[in-house]
Amino acid sequence: MNDKNIINQRISLVRQALKTQGVDAIIVPTADPHLSEYLPEYWQAREWLSGFTGSAGTLVVTADEAYLWADSRYWVQAEAELADTNIKLQKLQSGVKTHVEWLADNIPVGGCVEINGSMLAVAEKDKIVTAFASNNITLMTTDDTAVDEVWGNTFKDRPALPKAAVYRHKAEFVDTTAAQKLAKVRAQLAEIGANYHIVSSVDDIAWLTNLRGADVDYNPIFLAHLLIEPTKATLFIDQSKLNQDIKNELAEAGIGVADYNDIEQAVSQIPTDACLCIDANKVAVSTLACLQDGVNIINQTAPSTLLKSRKSRADIEHIKEAMRQDGAALCQFFAEFERKLASGERLSELDVDTMLIEVRSKQPHYVSPSFPTIAGYNANGALPHYRATPNSFSYLDGSGLLLIDSGAQYHNGTTDITRVVPIGSDITDEHKRDFTTVLKAHIALAQAHFPNGIGAPLLDAICRAPMWAQQMDYGHGTGHGVGYFLNVHEGPQSIGYPTPVTKDRAMKAGMITSNEPGLYREGQWGIRIENLVANVAVDTPQETDFGDYLKFETVTLCPIDTRLVDKALLTAEEVNWLNNYHSSVLSELKNRVDGEALAWLIERTEHI
Amino acid sequence: MNDKNIINQRISLVRQALKTQGVDAIIVPTADPHLSEYLPEYWQAREWLSGFTGSAGTLVVTADEAYLWADSRYWVQAEAELADTNIKLQKLQSGVKTHVEWLADNIPVGGCVEINGSMLAVAEKDKIVTAFASNNITLMTTDDTAVDEVWGNTFKDRPALPKAAVYRHKAEFVDTTAAQKLAKVRAQLAEIGANYHIVSSVDDIAWLTNLRGADVDYNPIFLAHLLIEPTKATLFIDQSKLNQDIKNELAEAGIGVADYNDIEQAVSQIPTDACLCIDANKVAVSTLACLQDGVNIINQTAPSTLLKSRKSRADIEHIKEAMRQDGAALCQFFAEFERKLASGERLSELDVDTMLIEVRSKQPHYVSPSFPTIAGYNANGALPHYRATPNSFSYLDGSGLLLIDSGAQYHNGTTDITRVVPIGSDITDEHKRDFTTVLKAHIALAQAHFPNGIGAPLLDAICRAPMWAQQMDYGHGTGHGVGYFLNVHEGPQSIGYPTPVTKDRAMKAGMITSNEPGLYREGQWGIRIENLVANVAVDTPQETDFGDYLKFETVTLCPIDTRLVDKALLTAEEVNWLNNYHSSVLSELKNRVDGEALAWLIERTEHI
Repeated sequence: MNDKNIINQRISLVRQALKTQGVDAIIVPTADPHLSEYLPEYWQAREWLSGFTGSAGTLVVTADEAYLWADSRYWVQAEAELADTNIKLQKLQSGVKTHVEWLADNIPVGGCVEINGSMLAVAEKDKIVTAFASNNITLMTTDDTAVDEVWGNTFKDRPALPKAAVYRHKAEFVDTTAAQKLAKVRAQLAEIGANYHIVSSVDDIAWLTNLRGADVDYNPIFLAHLLIEPTKATLFIDQSKLNQDIKNELAEAGIGVADYNDIEQAVSQIPTDACLCIDANKVAVSTLACLQDGVNIINQTAPSTLLKSRKSRADIEHIKEAMRQDGAALCQFFAEFERKLASGERLSELDVDTMLIEVRSKQPHYVSPSFPTIAGYNANGALPHYRATPNSFSYLDGSGLLLIDSGAQYHNGTTDITRVVPIGSDITDEHKRDFTTVLKAHIALAQAHFPNGIGAPLLDAICRAPMWAQQMDYGHGTGHGVGYFLNVHEGPQSIGYPTPVTKDRAMKAGMITSNEPGLYREGQWGIRIENLVANVAVDTPQETDFGDYLKFETVTLCPIDTRLVDKALLTAEEVNWLNNYHSSVLSELKNRVDGEALAWLIERTEHI
Repeated sequence: MNDKNIINQRISLVRQALKTQGVDAIIVPTADPHLSEYLPEYWQAREWLSGFTGSAGTLVVTADEAYLWADSRYWVQAEAELADTNIKLQKLQSGVKTHVEWLADNIPVGGCVEINGSMLAVAEKDKIVTAFASNNITLMTTDDTAVDEVWGNTFKDRPALPKAAVYRHKAEFVDTTAAQKLAKVRAQLAEIGANYHIVSSVDDIAWLTNLRGADVDYNPIFLAHLLIEPTKATLFIDQSKLNQDIKNELAEAGIGVADYNDIEQAVSQIPTDACLCIDANKVAVSTLACLQDGVNIINQTAPSTLLKSRKSRADIEHIKEAMRQDGAALCQFFAEFERKLASGERLSELDVDTMLIEVRSKQPHYVSPSFPTIAGYNANGALPHYRATPNSFSYLDGSGLLLIDSGAQYHNGTTDITRVVPIGSDITDEHKRDFTTVLKAHIALAQAHFPNGIGAPLLDAICRAPMWAQQMDYGHGTGHGVGYFLNVHEGPQSIGYPTPVTKDRAMKAGMITSNEPGLYREGQWGIRIENLVANVAVDTPQETDFGDYLKFETVTLCPIDTRLVDKALLTAEEVNWLNNYHSSVLSELKNRVDGEALAWLIERTEHI
């Protein structure tokens, strides 16, 4: 039986189970009980049932139909992977019904739709229930959906939950104890009058406990929930992941340990006079399933999310060291890469990934890539979330632009950098004009000073203004928060003008954010120039009536390829920024590399 | 009896009336049934009862207490005007209870607060009712409050409503008939499924009918309501203001006429199956008092507000001509002003206002000032809404900076301009640094290109970035919409980063907005550089994947005083903008002035 027949068989069995349950449809989202970006295989039901391997998308199966909703990043891939199945692609875009709207319109009045309550945020449930109300459609949340039954009981091939050992974030890189962090969270809870708090977001828990894990790819986290009560805190986790030392340290921090699945039972014990703080976007319906009626709920961004976003001075010094390590690795990569190309060796996008992992893995404190490398040559680079695979990749033949977006997890920091380099001899004025325009945008944001506490989305226009001046723009955000040896995407700040300006998104000292304007010409090339920047006080803070100010300190260290720069398009100030940046890159990295890497570094940091 | 005794007597009589009515407190806001910025005297109850003459503020009178809430613009003035009365000033600022919060906390549980329903927007009522709910306080809206009774029946000195004649907006300046405008509004109503529409905002009504009036200062409007029904439209107005020609023209446009006070009765006739569109911020509670239960209400910005904001190409050509007239008047003013100062004549801030009105009133199509002139010398300039009065003004003695913010209503356009000029010989580097920094901000916005439809508040960072770079900022918005021979402040767009980004605030071609960054050093000086800018398509629109783009065309024509510019602080691009602007000012105005005004124009537009 080929792959497509297996998919059709699975769908068919799920339909039988739906019929037995008396349910009209099932929603299979891309989610787990922690609402994480990367899911353990156990929760990859959408991929198992549809065969679609993309990292986002929602499957809906009814008695007669099956649809996958996916955004434009995945259309080509989804069409290929869904071919010969009976699942139809719904292209998520303005004017197309979402899966919730489609269900509200197509399920019979009085019907029932099921979803696994562990794969649904509390906030999301409220939206679906509202959308279904007018047609009297019931949303049933259960841990025993038709998919769970068929996958677990009929096929019996559902992977187990991961069991990777939990380890300490190395003490040398930690300057705030778990007990101190817990006290800070409790202080913030007290300010809003909350005395109970559930944290299900795994990076918040890793930050709070100063522990790390390896339960999913790229993010050094472990699956757990944390319940903070007035006089105790409990970590709900597969206890086989913890050694006795870690249990002892948790106990010293005032954190007890219980089994992962006991969170629901513990939640059921929260007294009705409690005031419970949750982030309804980050807690699953199943986690609250047994909460007693009457418990007062405060829904807001978790205190740990805000605290985690503000790295300490010591954290930032460690991160800067990680940037030196990463920069040195990149010098080695680019030197070797250029030598091989010059020697006539045929390289592919996949080789870029392999070579990057190799040089980075030799650096101290290296753990893993921080996300899947994007190496996109020419037209592939125009797909902002392109990923080369063994089944579909390009060789770096001929001439053009290669976009490389990559990063690593080190114990002392998380990196994320995008560079674009010229390949071959036929680099045109158009290539240079586009690259230089994106560089102008990058520099505009890198140089910005801004009021402490301003909403991050409001800064986006400063970055885009030089691109708008050329009638250019890009369809993704300009900046996302980045963790400290944690998730490469973290909140709450976000530099992107369509993002709502909320008080949680206020810029505060210590936040680390990406600065990554881009330009994508479909079928031609893509450009993105990305450094990470830290929010720091301006050089000479003045005590005036005009408030206090922050600036960005660029912490990423790697040359920006001046072979693609049209100097005539830069202002003197922009040229100055670029030359100063390259002086800093050279000075920080020159003692870390030698041989061809040093020669490459010196050449690529030459002033223009 | 002196002024203060009169106030105390009025308050005392109002308290007696409250007691008779069995009401615990009265709110006396600064508002009329049209929620206008400038009120006819009939609606200036807050001033009558408190003696406070500021243009904003809310009075609350209880059996024992009386408070006036006012923002920082009015604190000095309010303290002076309230002295020796028993009314206490509440300084509106972060951390201080608003009048609604104060009442919710201080009125006994189950108590009753009254307010004139003609002085309260529907949206505002909802907020007060919500705030009062927990203490079971009733908000009574009536047209017969204690204040109305005492002012109208006891004192019998309440002014009548204004009776100024309504006139046509000159046909040569109108390119869309009232019938066409009404059809556009009806088309937009149809799109949202509404078939009835109440417009109470007087500038919307003036725009829709192509009529103007003189019922209040500065804004050429007349008091009226407009009710649009499926097959007819009715203007509710004091009919003595209309001559037969205008009535005939209204009839031709499909607009009937009824008495001003009949709006409530007409609203009561709206059928229960109607779908009524209102802007709840722009319709008073009293207007809807008799609306039948069951009428479906759609609350949104009125279609006319959006349509009115987008001036046609013909409108903009007329406005440019008004700018030439205004610019010529300003040349005459400044030439005369500088001659008098040079000759040793002593001038005051009040003289500036007088002289400006004199030169403007000689221009074709002149009607009136468009707002009260702000002429603030040195420390007075640091108060963004300063207004010199015969009781309190400064002479232009010694040296320093004079800020002049003024404008006029012409049949062919509304102007609003701020310039800062040096007085005396002692102009310091600090003066120049501040002025040049504000100029950099002004130029940054003036030069911006931006995506068609972007939220106006998102552009503010482009303007402020050069000021933030110097740790400077200002506490007011950067830009407000400006009417076409209509209100100098109109919506919906607003360039100000604290303003919520809503879809109504999208930038569209034809909008005219102010560009007015500033800097205020308390006790020293204030700077603001204000031109009006029109949203126009970029010079060479490209058909790309990146959307379409608008830019600002500066339409105000008057030299920016280069004696205050420190050229070393400007980039080459900024110098270029300033010189190009001055070339344009010279070329547009040189044939409109002669003698000392021409000499002044030539000197002040010299390139730097």
